[in-house]
Amino acid sequence: MYHNLRGFKYLYRKQEKNRGRITIAKSNSDEVNPPEFKPLDDGVSPRAPCKVIFPFLSSPPFSVLGVDMRIADNKKVHNTGRFKNSNLIVRRNKEFIIDIRFNRPFNKMQDNVEVEFLIGGSPNENRGTYIIVSFGKDIGEMIWKCRVLNTQGNDVTVGITPDPSCIVGRFRTFVAVVSGLGKQRTPKNPDTDVYVLFNAWDPADQVYLSKESDRQEYVLNDVGVIYNGEFNNMSSRPWNYGQFEEGVLDACLLVLDAGKVPLVYRGNATEVVRQGSALMNSQDDDGVLVGNWSGDYSIGTSPTAWTGSTEILLKYAREGGVPVCFAQCWGFAGVLNTFLRCLGIPARVITNYCSAHDNTGNLKTDIMLDEDGKVNKSRTRDSVWNYHCWNEVYMTRPDLPQKFSGWQVVDCTPQETSDGLYRCGPTSVSAIKDGELSYPFDAKFVFAELNSDVIYHQIDKYGKTKILHVDTAYVGKLIVTKRINSNQYEDITSNYKYPEGSKSDKQSMQMAESRGVPLRDYEPPAEAGVDIQLQADTVKMGEDFKLTMYIKNQSSKRCTIDATITGSVVFYTGVTSTTIKQETRKATVEAWKTEKLLIDIRATEYMPHLVEQSNLLFVVKGSIEETGASLTTMRVVTLRTPELTIRVSGSPRVGKAFTVIVEFRNPYNFALENVQFRLDSPGLIKTKFKSYKEILPGGVMQYTESITPLNPGKRVLIAGLDCARLRQPSPHPPE
Amino acid sequence: MYHNLRGFKYLYRKQEKNRGRITIAKSNSDEVNPPEFKPLDDGVSPRAPCKVIFPFLSSPPFSVLGVDMRIADNKKVHNTGRFKNSNLIVRRNKEFIIDIRFNRPFNKMQDNVEVEFLIGGSPNENRGTYIIVSFGKDIGEMIWKCRVLNTQGNDVTVGITPDPSCIVGRFRTFVAVVSGLGKQRTPKNPDTDVYVLFNAWDPADQVYLSKESDRQEYVLNDVGVIYNGEFNNMSSRPWNYGQFEEGVLDACLLVLDAGKVPLVYRGNATEVVRQGSALMNSQDDDGVLVGNWSGDYSIGTSPTAWTGSTEILLKYAREGGVPVCFAQCWGFAGVLNTFLRCLGIPARVITNYCSAHDNTGNLKTDIMLDEDGKVNKSRTRDSVWNYHCWNEVYMTRPDLPQKFSGWQVVDCTPQETSDGLYRCGPTSVSAIKDGELSYPFDAKFVFAELNSDVIYHQIDKYGKTKILHVDTAYVGKLIVTKRINSNQYEDITSNYKYPEGSKSDKQSMQMAESRGVPLRDYEPPAEAGVDIQLQADTVKMGEDFKLTMYIKNQSSKRCTIDATITGSVVFYTGVTSTTIKQETRKATVEAWKTEKLLIDIRATEYMPHLVEQSNLLFVVKGSIEETGASLTTMRVVTLRTPELTIRVSGSPRVGKAFTVIVEFRNPYNFALENVQFRLDSPGLIKTKFKSYKEILPGGVMQYTESITPLNPGKRVLIAGLDCARLRQPSPHPPE
Repeated sequence: MYHNLRGFKYLYRKQEKNRGRITIAKSNSDEVNPPEFKPLDDGVSPRAPCKVIFPFLSSPPFSVLGVDMRIADNKKVHNTGRFKNSNLIVRRNKEFIIDIRFNRPFNKMQDNVEVEFLIGGSPNENRGTYIIVSFGKDIGEMIWKCRVLNTQGNDVTVGITPDPSCIVGRFRTFVAVVSGLGKQRTPKNPDTDVYVLFNAWDPADQVYLSKESDRQEYVLNDVGVIYNGEFNNMSSRPWNYGQFEEGVLDACLLVLDAGKVPLVYRGNATEVVRQGSALMNSQDDDGVLVGNWSGDYSIGTSPTAWTGSTEILLKYAREGGVPVCFAQCWGFAGVLNTFLRCLGIPARVITNYCSAHDNTGNLKTDIMLDEDGKVNKSRTRDSVWNYHCWNEVYMTRPDLPQKFSGWQVVDCTPQETSDGLYRCGPTSVSAIKDGELSYPFDAKFVFAELNSDVIYHQIDKYGKTKILHVDTAYVGKLIVTKRINSNQYEDITSNYKYPEGSKSDKQSMQMAESRGVPLRDYEPPAEAGVDIQLQADTVKMGEDFKLTMYIKNQSSKRCTIDATITGSVVFYTGVTSTTIKQETRKATVEAWKTEKLLIDIRATEYMPHLVEQSNLLFVVKGSIEETGASLTTMRVVTLRTPELTIRVSGSPRVGKAFTVIVEFRNPYNFALENVQFRLDSPGLIKTKFKSYKEILPGGVMQYTESITPLNPGKRVLIAGLDCARLRQPSPHPPE
Repeated sequence: MYHNLRGFKYLYRKQEKNRGRITIAKSNSDEVNPPEFKPLDDGVSPRAPCKVIFPFLSSPPFSVLGVDMRIADNKKVHNTGRFKNSNLIVRRNKEFIIDIRFNRPFNKMQDNVEVEFLIGGSPNENRGTYIIVSFGKDIGEMIWKCRVLNTQGNDVTVGITPDPSCIVGRFRTFVAVVSGLGKQRTPKNPDTDVYVLFNAWDPADQVYLSKESDRQEYVLNDVGVIYNGEFNNMSSRPWNYGQFEEGVLDACLLVLDAGKVPLVYRGNATEVVRQGSALMNSQDDDGVLVGNWSGDYSIGTSPTAWTGSTEILLKYAREGGVPVCFAQCWGFAGVLNTFLRCLGIPARVITNYCSAHDNTGNLKTDIMLDEDGKVNKSRTRDSVWNYHCWNEVYMTRPDLPQKFSGWQVVDCTPQETSDGLYRCGPTSVSAIKDGELSYPFDAKFVFAELNSDVIYHQIDKYGKTKILHVDTAYVGKLIVTKRINSNQYEDITSNYKYPEGSKSDKQSMQMAESRGVPLRDYEPPAEAGVDIQLQADTVKMGEDFKLTMYIKNQSSKRCTIDATITGSVVFYTGVTSTTIKQETRKATVEAWKTEKLLIDIRATEYMPHLVEQSNLLFVVKGSIEETGASLTTMRVVTLRTPELTIRVSGSPRVGKAFTVIVEFRNPYNFALENVQFRLDSPGLIKTKFKSYKEILPGGVMQYTESITPLNPGKRVLIAGLDCARLRQPSPHPPE
């Protein structure tokens, strides 16, 4: 009967009727407005708008001639002056002032005036989508506040205060005069639309921040730094958040509409943050960015090429909600940060170094080594990301016990589905620290990213496994964010973790266990009495370097070590690629002494095999001849790509052109082809592109741009370079 | 550039590659098996299966000739004997016994044997999708237990015990002999596949129930009763859960596969229950049933026509995961109950009378009345369902503090999205009772269904509203479920609620407020001193009846009451349809007295307007002349449709035919057209259908079926009737 299944599916979709059910509004851009004139006896009149003539009135009825939203003044006091948007933008629970001009003086003993704010396609007072405030003779109950501040001639100045938990979005404004005949409204006018945002300045708002310096950074700063690299060799990437750029606020509201987030939830910061984390990735819901870790970015923009969020959000909006290609974690975190700051939610980007990606939430990251010391790719299913970026938002959590308010983790990189969709959080940072993992959302997943144990297993020739070594300190090594009013990082590890091995740390692990995290049920092998470590200095891509292996004998007996060092290329996600080197070493270490072995790594060994982001993983698998005890460790080495330099000639002044020079030297002995530069500066220019077909070995590219600032203020220049060969030098292995 | 957006979308979907990422298995029906022979040095050999010849061996190598799963014996002790399924079905953490026949006697000092259980397309030991147990010389670590129970000749009897939290589903079984050359496995054989289920008999299982009588009802009973109607005039509907019927277990696993539930989550009852609640409805994920409250069921089966779950689940499976049309709440709850009991999770169907459907979770159900007393349909956005069915499951909640284990609410009727998908729960019943609403999942929504206040508002001619009356006791009146070993109901209201107004009730409400439920911030009007109530006896559809209004004067002064009684047709969801009656009454009531007014309702008034399930809503809006105080109440009257009778001739015995007579009389003065009967009995017959083109007024239909029982045991016969005219007598209003 149903041969054409696809057709049938559409058919039943259409048939999902709800005559006995109620539907709810899910779009800010839908619009249903009340009629300009609504007679009193509404029950029996036709519902269509109608013009009414008043033939029996001797003088024209009291009516509204105009409304002035006083945009510039209001924006100044609402901290929204930097938005490149011609409409009024206000924050919740703070009064804004409008002027209404009537056709005669307003008489408060006689006249009834209502100001209405409507959002979405089915405005309803019980849902917060239809707000009515009134002044004059007959004042009803009001959720938003309203007061007359001044009357002068035919003009009335009115102060209106949105309630502290009202819906965030774009409201349409109407002014209505209510008489014995009915309501006469002003016609629809998009110029009087008002955007309402979260208010970090107001103690009654869910996102209140008490310090002005925090608000300046976490709500108003439109540039930032995202940290990457590895924990003891950090790199960083500037990022243009650009939340005030033209079109960005509308794009953020479009994201919510595209994600069908019910309007009634949009006053709840917890809900907006959770939905935001789902909607920044394209999975499930055609969100903003398509994740891609394949190395092949030919049909879109490489994840490493972006310099900021503006270009991404505007492209998404311009194309009507088609996901933008491509991103990896920092891109996701950067765009989510823009979305949050734009709507007024305090937010920052976090980097967690050595972030476990635990597929099952069992707090174990299993690294399976073959007998020869190589990582067994088919049996190693967990990975430790060299770094992983997520966001924090600052808010109270009225749904949770009070102590869990404050910074919350939110992560939009599509790692795991959380409760069916790709998203993660918000989850309280302090709850993570204390192992209180029962509370929503996704506390267990974040806890595992920070606290998993790395377990090295050996697989024998029969396929049987045994545990070689357990490293409880490898994961969640360092957690950082940009410092306020600085480009340096701030170490916030202690927000997330008690010191390894401390009493509080143990209590936190116990609490986590009582909340369903599986016990550490494996038997760690006896302590070997010998500790091994790998180290390397900063390494430039394309150069030879030395890896140092320290062997620390912490016992009272001399020992002899056999060790195999295996080097492989690794994605930043911790998944290994080609093996580039394997070397066996033997060393004898006296009691209480430390030996140092140097391993030479040549550029010719690793250059042909690199994947993007240029990381090498070295694993040591060794044993002590005297006792047979196992020794294992691993270390990621990040290869630095050549840097861009930006210089500015002259001191920039408003209305006066200055010159920016972006310079790059190709340090390699091969030519770089199809090199694209981006130059970006929020508030100053839109992203500028420049392409070069080829930069020869040793060649220098110098790109000059002339810029004329139109507004005063501190500005940041961000330049980026994208070149497939620097991401993945050939020969690229076929797939 | 991207003109063809649809094409582009598919393109980028294809491009979402994960070379640097790890993917996880989400289907039980996918299959990847190890090769029959795996040589030792696996690292360098090709991965394809290969046959190896052993030219240098003087005698054939030790090998497996056959495996006997001892299906009947094992099923008996595992309480799975009633499943109509030819494979072995066991429960977790209970030993099952298999016989392995070798080509020579087994030597435990020399031989190595492994039994492997695999599930899904990427079996992995660290994920619980590849289980290895071994016996003989070289025993590795094992998660499932294994012991040799007996050896006799070439046969070895082995006992195997799945671990108490293992994945639930269908595993493939292999027996492998491990020698110095490699592993030699038995070939793939679907007859040795084994289903593993949750185990309510075992204290270590998450779903353990301590009483045998509970397990008999909540896991093993395959028929039940679902209550409906209204709280003081309850009806019921028998339901064939049929969890043991042929194909049902496979259909339940298909539901999990179709919903892409990762295999690693399928040992976690919390996760299986939550996913189950999302997957029973077609929304989001093409789940089992399409919800339809429209009255138009022409392209499918009417929600009222089903007699059980079997037909629905088998149709869903047969058509490869195409949602089945149509269901309302009891159908959803019935099918979810089958799914849960089938997988071994204790479950029961609950009915909550006067169940609030609160769109915003603000604990208020706003009923907006026009000045004339009619419910204002466009401004009333909340509704109270006459009854609503959900499920409870019994399990520990290792993710929550211990006190929240026990019965959990789970609801698969698509009411509201929970965290992005249509689903609800599991949420702890005891947490709901105590107002502990922070814990997952969806506690707030369930709390509102049970505890919302009904607020009657009056809308004046200007559109302004005022509160007439607040009823804190209307919602969540009575919560019932089928009693164990009986068809009577059990009142379980006290599991969910403290007595209205008690100290514990107040504490619970306070706790709920501190967990983010909004305060009751409205001003209830002063007590009127007069109480009104509506009552009606059992009413048969098609007959005239009387409604009684009691006016109880609880003051020391005589009072005069003006009251408007409005009757309208109402869906069981509480949404009102046509107004059928409006009558104004005046009454004078002496101090401390009660007056009784009778209102006549004639069949000719309501019959032309009925919608399915035949409910009428009467709303009284009155006032006291002396004080101006408002009085409001409402009452749903359920109209009973004519009943079917079932008679059995002779006493049924195995192997002997008996006769079932289903009888129906048309009591109306109009003919019933296209009447369909269903006769159902789990374990006895598959659903049988019989159609009649017409049953004349007063006509009697008698339908006879001859049945021969094949197995002993108590059986239940369920008959159902479906006729569009009984759901919605014409003239049906056009839409």
